[in-house]
Amino acid sequence: MKEAILRLLKESRTEYLSGEEICRTLDVSRTAVWKHIQSLRESGYEIEARPRAGYTLTGVPDRLYPGEILDGLSTRFLGREIYYCDSVSTTNDLAKELARKGAGEGSMVVAEEQTGGKGRLGRKWYAPKYKGIWFTLILRPPVTPTEANQVTMMAAIAIATAIKRETGVWAGIKWPNDLLVGGKKVCGILTELSAEIERINYMVVGIGINVNQDEKDLPEELRKSATSLKVESGGSISRVRLIQASLTEFERWYGIWLEQGFDPVLARWKEMSVSLNCPVHINTPTKSWDGWAEDVDKDGALLLRLPGGELQRLISGEVSLRLS
Amino acid sequence: MKEAILRLLKESRTEYLSGEEICRTLDVSRTAVWKHIQSLRESGYEIEARPRAGYTLTGVPDRLYPGEILDGLSTRFLGREIYYCDSVSTTNDLAKELARKGAGEGSMVVAEEQTGGKGRLGRKWYAPKYKGIWFTLILRPPVTPTEANQVTMMAAIAIATAIKRETGVWAGIKWPNDLLVGGKKVCGILTELSAEIERINYMVVGIGINVNQDEKDLPEELRKSATSLKVESGGSISRVRLIQASLTEFERWYGIWLEQGFDPVLARWKEMSVSLNCPVHINTPTKSWDGWAEDVDKDGALLLRLPGGELQRLISGEVSLRLS
Repeated sequence: MKEAILRLLKESRTEYLSGEEICRTLDVSRTAVWKHIQSLRESGYEIEARPRAGYTLTGVPDRLYPGEILDGLSTRFLGREIYYCDSVSTTNDLAKELARKGAGEGSMVVAEEQTGGKGRLGRKWYAPKYKGIWFTLILRPPVTPTEANQVTMMAAIAIATAIKRETGVWAGIKWPNDLLVGGKKVCGILTELSAEIERINYMVVGIGINVNQDEKDLPEELRKSATSLKVESGGSISRVRLIQASLTEFERWYGIWLEQGFDPVLARWKEMSVSLNCPVHINTPTKSWDGWAEDVDKDGALLLRLPGGELQRLISGEVSLRLS
Repeated sequence: MKEAILRLLKESRTEYLSGEEICRTLDVSRTAVWKHIQSLRESGYEIEARPRAGYTLTGVPDRLYPGEILDGLSTRFLGREIYYCDSVSTTNDLAKELARKGAGEGSMVVAEEQTGGKGRLGRKWYAPKYKGIWFTLILRPPVTPTEANQVTMMAAIAIATAIKRETGVWAGIKWPNDLLVGGKKVCGILTELSAEIERINYMVVGIGINVNQDEKDLPEELRKSATSLKVESGGSISRVRLIQASLTEFERWYGIWLEQGFDPVLARWKEMSVSLNCPVHINTPTKSWDGWAEDVDKDGALLLRLPGGELQRLISGEVSLRLS
């Protein structure tokens, strides 16, 4: 009912909507309307009431409420079932729990803040309140765990495309799946899966985007290596519109991948990459390498040409771009 | 305390052990001893009490109690932490739950019966009470999900070796990981994993062995395709000893794999295979193939030589041996 009233207010735009009309349209009492209006105000919606004229919506809060995300979302299945948290340990952990309980393909967890945010390989991910987009998608693609990496690479393309569309900022992909602007990280993707050897039960694709942090909001130790879309574009970004664009692009690329396989994804990934055909330094838990990032193979592994001429295949690792 | 009393009874073998001595050795009251003896009897242990002589153990129940499995187990870490269930939906599901809560590497879930037993690809697995061994091992190997299949193949070797050692029955491996005796299935392995793209959080290796079923205990529709070690060896098998041998061989091969990699595992797997160098029929969800099973590659994929001469690589599928 609350959502229905909000929809009516949005539809009437700057016009005043009389309480009587709301009652008639939705078949509820004046008291109920008043209560829902109060509740919307508590959620951050600014609603002006004028005697004998009615209500008008003067402000929408900067929140990732499901109602806001769904309002104008053009996807078919992705993000149509939304679990919203004001604060959560990690959206991936909650998504895994929901997936285990049967949440369907395309379900999404979104949070205003992650208190235990993590990056790849157990590293911490700084995810402060209302500043970024921290969300996780639940997928059940009919592939083996070996192919899961293809979805992560596909996700990087989709998010970079959405960022370009909504903010004009061009983010390049650093192998395997970070998005960089001017060499600084603006988005990270953490994919986790539950699988048998021959099939995936479910996978969760966690995406963190630094959106509206000012430079001062970034922890000092990260300012050299991380940035936000606001810093890069020079203005505040609508997080709701960016998440809608991300879902749209993700669903589009997911469809391409399911229908046409990995080839078009890999081709586009290479086009958007900023860590190919350049000298790189790579750290793995056991070893580090210097070499020329020559190519990425069909499994998403990086092919590194070593100074001696040998080709080294790397599945995992932390790339630094060597500006030589 | 109950375990301590059982241990004393086992140590004294056929001698009578006086209640007084138990009290003195373990520093407990006569009443406590009596209660624990009763509790052991309720668990199925046959304990004779003779006035003025004491207690003697005359029978051990055919149960997979942790105390029985640990008694004489020579492993270093595998199966030293045991979760025992009289009945469970599936040992894999319980193991996954325990692994999520932090159960350490080598922990084991064992059940007398699975009510929801399943095989690969969601198929039903018939797991009746007290007749087989249904257990799951929790592992946390430092590898990527792509390498998880290596553990399953390693498990097949280990279990086949343990079966040979304990029962004299030679079980061959059918790709990817069934154990067959005379063309009939005697063991299945279902591996599941929780992972990121670059590392495994945990994997659970579920192993089901048909042990003491008589032919009449096998469902009629399975008699052509399944058998038990009792049927094949002609006598009852100690399930406890077989599980101990399985744990020992599994730990040994796991160590070889961690230290030396997949090569020695793959070599041994090929030696024990009954579905290589022979004509096979293979069903996948979308297609079926006839061909010559030529080899298995370093990812565990089957290389099938098609009648036209082409080599087809298969990651998943159901093999039927074609006796031509």
